[in-house]
Amino acid sequence: MIIVMKAGATKHEKDEVVERVKELGYKPHVIHGTTRDVIGAVGDERKKLVLQQLESMSGVESVVPILKPYKLASKEVKKEKSIIRITDDVAVGGRQVCVIAGPCAVESEKQIMEAAEAVRKAGAHMLRGGAYKPRTSPYSFQGMKEKGLKLLAKAGKMTGLPIVTEVVNPETAELVAEYADVLQIGTRNSQNFELLKKIGKLKKPVLLKRGMSMTIQELLMSAEYIMSEGNQRVILCERGIRTFETATRNTLDLSAIPVVRNETHLPIAVDPSHGTGHLKYVAPMAYAAVAAGADALIIEVHPDPEHATSDGPQSQTPAVFAETMAKLRLFAEAAGRTL
Amino acid sequence: MIIVMKAGATKHEKDEVVERVKELGYKPHVIHGTTRDVIGAVGDERKKLVLQQLESMSGVESVVPILKPYKLASKEVKKEKSIIRITDDVAVGGRQVCVIAGPCAVESEKQIMEAAEAVRKAGAHMLRGGAYKPRTSPYSFQGMKEKGLKLLAKAGKMTGLPIVTEVVNPETAELVAEYADVLQIGTRNSQNFELLKKIGKLKKPVLLKRGMSMTIQELLMSAEYIMSEGNQRVILCERGIRTFETATRNTLDLSAIPVVRNETHLPIAVDPSHGTGHLKYVAPMAYAAVAAGADALIIEVHPDPEHATSDGPQSQTPAVFAETMAKLRLFAEAAGRTL
Amino acid sequence: MIIVMKAGATKHEKDEVVERVKELGYKPHVIHGTTRDVIGAVGDERKKLVLQQLESMSGVESVVPILKPYKLASKEVKKEKSIIRITDDVAVGGRQVCVIAGPCAVESEKQIMEAAEAVRKAGAHMLRGGAYKPRTSPYSFQGMKEKGLKLLAKAGKMTGLPIVTEVVNPETAELVAEYADVLQIGTRNSQNFELLKKIGKLKKPVLLKRGMSMTIQELLMSAEYIMSEGNQRVILCERGIRTFETATRNTLDLSAIPVVRNETHLPIAVDPSHGTGHLKYVAPMAYAAVAAGADALIIEVHPDPEHATSDGPQSQTPAVFAETMAKLRLFAEAAGRTL
Amino acid sequence: MIIVMKAGATKHEKDEVVERVKELGYKPHVIHGTTRDVIGAVGDERKKLVLQQLESMSGVESVVPILKPYKLASKEVKKEKSIIRITDDVAVGGRQVCVIAGPCAVESEKQIMEAAEAVRKAGAHMLRGGAYKPRTSPYSFQGMKEKGLKLLAKAGKMTGLPIVTEVVNPETAELVAEYADVLQIGTRNSQNFELLKKIGKLKKPVLLKRGMSMTIQELLMSAEYIMSEGNQRVILCERGIRTFETATRNTLDLSAIPVVRNETHLPIAVDPSHGTGHLKYVAPMAYAAVAAGADALIIEVHPDPEHATSDGPQSQTPAVFAETMAKLRLFAEAAGRTL
Repeated sequence: MIIVMKAGATKHEKDEVVERVKELGYKPHVIHGTTRDVIGAVGDERKKLVLQQLESMSGVESVVPILKPYKLASKEVKKEKSIIRITDDVAVGGRQVCVIAGPCAVESEKQIMEAAEAVRKAGAHMLRGGAYKPRTSPYSFQGMKEKGLKLLAKAGKMTGLPIVTEVVNPETAELVAEYADVLQIGTRNSQNFELLKKIGKLKKPVLLKRGMSMTIQELLMSAEYIMSEGNQRVILCERGIRTFETATRNTLDLSAIPVVRNETHLPIAVDPSHGTGHLKYVAPMAYAAVAAGADALIIEVHPDPEHATSDGPQSQTPAVFAETMAKLRLFAEAAGRTL
Repeated sequence: MIIVMKAGATKHEKDEVVERVKELGYKPHVIHGTTRDVIGAVGDERKKLVLQQLESMSGVESVVPILKPYKLASKEVKKEKSIIRITDDVAVGGRQVCVIAGPCAVESEKQIMEAAEAVRKAGAHMLRGGAYKPRTSPYSFQGMKEKGLKLLAKAGKMTGLPIVTEVVNPETAELVAEYADVLQIGTRNSQNFELLKKIGKLKKPVLLKRGMSMTIQELLMSAEYIMSEGNQRVILCERGIRTFETATRNTLDLSAIPVVRNETHLPIAVDPSHGTGHLKYVAPMAYAAVAAGADALIIEVHPDPEHATSDGPQSQTPAVFAETMAKLRLFAEAAGRTL
Repeated sequence: MIIVMKAGATKHEKDEVVERVKELGYKPHVIHGTTRDVIGAVGDERKKLVLQQLESMSGVESVVPILKPYKLASKEVKKEKSIIRITDDVAVGGRQVCVIAGPCAVESEKQIMEAAEAVRKAGAHMLRGGAYKPRTSPYSFQGMKEKGLKLLAKAGKMTGLPIVTEVVNPETAELVAEYADVLQIGTRNSQNFELLKKIGKLKKPVLLKRGMSMTIQELLMSAEYIMSEGNQRVILCERGIRTFETATRNTLDLSAIPVVRNETHLPIAVDPSHGTGHLKYVAPMAYAAVAAGADALIIEVHPDPEHATSDGPQSQTPAVFAETMAKLRLFAEAAGRTL
Repeated sequence: MIIVMKAGATKHEKDEVVERVKELGYKPHVIHGTTRDVIGAVGDERKKLVLQQLESMSGVESVVPILKPYKLASKEVKKEKSIIRITDDVAVGGRQVCVIAGPCAVESEKQIMEAAEAVRKAGAHMLRGGAYKPRTSPYSFQGMKEKGLKLLAKAGKMTGLPIVTEVVNPETAELVAEYADVLQIGTRNSQNFELLKKIGKLKKPVLLKRGMSMTIQELLMSAEYIMSEGNQRVILCERGIRTFETATRNTLDLSAIPVVRNETHLPIAVDPSHGTGHLKYVAPMAYAAVAAGADALIIEVHPDPEHATSDGPQSQTPAVFAETMAKLRLFAEAAGRTL
């Protein structure tokens, strides 16, 4: 931490800050500047975030953190990139770009079976589908719940695809974990810390979506919640942030890919469907994500988008998805990867 | 809903849309424009949000909603402003501006007792304090939990102040409700729909904070979740939104006050402490909130901010709070209200 | 400046940075941390922003500025608040809250005369009106130009009100300065540095609007452009920033008032008309601005809003404005000021 | 335009609106809804934006535009994609992805010559370099001005590369046009409408950067300003928007590429250097831009970044640029294009 003193801070005020820094277990280090002094506090600031409280002291202008607040997610702890193995055949973070596809929500046996079969045929590696749906409106379809989980599992078994589905409540987390291969934490629950702690105690890989207004650093802190409970198998997922632009549903922040690569050993997935909200923008952004280095993609595919109960406007048909996959292969190769 | 057709949409495409509109139970109404046609779908669109899915249809450019998606929170259902009664003496939404004050977190018996006594003395109407703390870092203090609830209850009893405290998990909601007079939903849980549904089933008033990147319409939809489960006693709370500005911790959106007043019968509180994140900005923004018409304020007060476990830099001391209250009285009067 | 080295930076890399810091005229000061070193560079960093370039050096993680980049606008240079005198009777920054009112654009002699008379009668201190209109669309009304200036001057003379009008081009700046008492820089020109330099050479007070996505620090840097050319009479103006919220045209950031008060000696005005974009929100936000400590308000008033060529939906009628002024007086008094 | 009436609007209010719609030259079309009526106004709303003013009328809740406000930039006017020819050899918008490279600012003859030679050798198609620099601080290097233009022209002649340089003032626009092959409008001048009108009268292609908080629709409106003055040769440029994320200097909005492709016939360039602000993120985002369909890239390359007067931290060295170009070729091919 660097504590910046006010221009006119008195000697007494500086002494008090130095004293308090020592009291908190850090080694103070004063630099006398031309207009103001700064005090470095040497020590691992992560376990003692209380240092920020020095901002309340008389004569202090601001407190500037130097270290990143995450540890288990950082490259300092683990240098080489993590490969999250899902099954014997499927992993995220390796040379292969992993494609997760399927409908927004499980709506019926017919729908999920058709979707599963279609995405498998086109080359997807995992099947997605929501059984518990966090919807902005209480009047919208809230998912088929356990019945949906059973249908998903059936579709997964039929196609041999591992399944990815969302957990929305600590109370039902274990139930979901019985059926799912990967537990998804949605954007609205990305700082639902009680849910993160619960998931951290389960033994299933996690797909952790970035919150709508979450910095990448905060995303890593949410990963840290899961990891500090014992579950190291976290896949981060960029899905668009909220900005002033309305041409797209969210603003897909693809620069999160190289930033994440620089900051952590965890792999990163991209969701171009929620990230753009419009079918016609999904494929180009999927290509771009792979070119920027994404480890996985999660794409909404529905056998009949105009009758979908949710997210129809951004869902690909099986035919469009097959076409997207064909082009994706070319971009994966250009990136030195396989699909 | 207004369905905007593409400029070159064919007659067949238009017919299909008209057919689908009827199928969904709406009455279609076509307007032939100079460059494109638009189709109005007459009917209550709130219960059938699927209409949005028409955007997937061939020839459709966009689907524009006309009605607001909330119902119970709307003025159409209830014209007069709601007054949320907390105890015989305290209510939110009436002529009196209600001030809720206290520390960010309950830290010890001494701390909460001192804080409670100080805010009561200065004229606060309710006591706040967190027993369960949702913190960005898993390494930060997570609250005293049930022990904290007991201390809060004790401090409330001693001072006669009703208490406001946060609920973070459906699993502990009932426990919190045993001790609290008002249940707070924090900004990070503002779209934790499972928690909202649970709270909707309890019989306690709710202070619902706006999410960091939540539109006011979405805030009302979260209120709608609580209300549609049977609990109508919701107090909305503006606490700052996330923007590019870094001089303040968040950007306190005071225009939310007149917007909320225009859209709903529910009362609105303002949290200038989290909204600004710096002690020196809290008082001016509290005055501004009252001038703009806020029904309540929630202000962080700590007997010793520089030793606080959280939010020290934005906490007022008892002396500063007393001063703030004195000035607030003048602004409340100018606004035709009492304090 | 604080230069943060990477965790594994070599001795050679650190030496190179220290060398470069000296070369640039600063005194280096190394702090050895537990996981990484930081190097303080002591000296006035404002005139040598090149220090930021050290981020390109091998082994450097980031460069963190400590000093604020503005000088003339800072309180270090001038402690007491500036009062910008416009005429013998009118000043901004003193005890009196100054109200600037009038139509968005000058449309006709009749319109501007009626508007001027109405706002004077209600107690406004200055008359606003645009003769050069920066409009998003080239097909919108672009203003009456010099003819508009003449009408404004006539209206000002008739009512005795000083006039405030916008400058949009260095080429016409002097012409505008012949007619105007205060030169306005609009939000879209807030970083049109050529225009700022030009205005800095003229001898008229300036109302400098904050850009739509400008931090307060950048606003002060734009003021610094004007001041460093010799013109110290700058009034800052908060007019709403661009965020994700769509209920209002912009998000009026009233916390800018105490932040500006804390950072600079320059006075601050607030524009609740552009800040909200809707008539019904203008008055409450005007009250809030005064409560938060604004030195001036700029409010759109039009004798016939529904026939206005621009900004009709946010313009007050003379009757509404008179009512707003009456209430504003109460809030100004509560704030210890006059109106 | 769709005019949405309030729920309780009277017959008289509706009649008034219908009358006013007719008066403005539109054909009104009333749809009676279940809770409120909406009135369609049939006619080309672009030339008569005054329709928005109906929001001031009694009984009106909101006015929703249906048509896009741009015309010359729209696909309705020109269906096929525009190819902007710069010289006999270079064009933007065709099959070849065009790479513009060079330093942020021209600093000396040696620097620009070295940079030009290096980027030409690596395969760039145009040379960039600023002679007039719009800088946030008045104390930063403001560019070499005409001397810089001369050096740029010399470097362009030596290497055979057309040059791209920024125009910052209507007063010097013609001077810049004498030397430059492409006139750049920077992000801070993207709504400097006086400059846009001036540029619209010159006969040189324009690279128009998106403003930091500009929607894509507003970007097209700024293009419309240039085009409506007679200059149709506009290349749009995405360069990052301002959001809450601080890991990157801006948030590069690559979804702007498919959105622009969908809305207009104009080509689109991407600036990954300003878009990210950090060297290590430039290359991945350049690859992503090409994968998403960008027609051109503009990349900062400096022979000695750590001694650069501006933008050092985001500048590539010639060696890194050559490597980036080699990989870019693979992605261009995957996208069915050449480099």
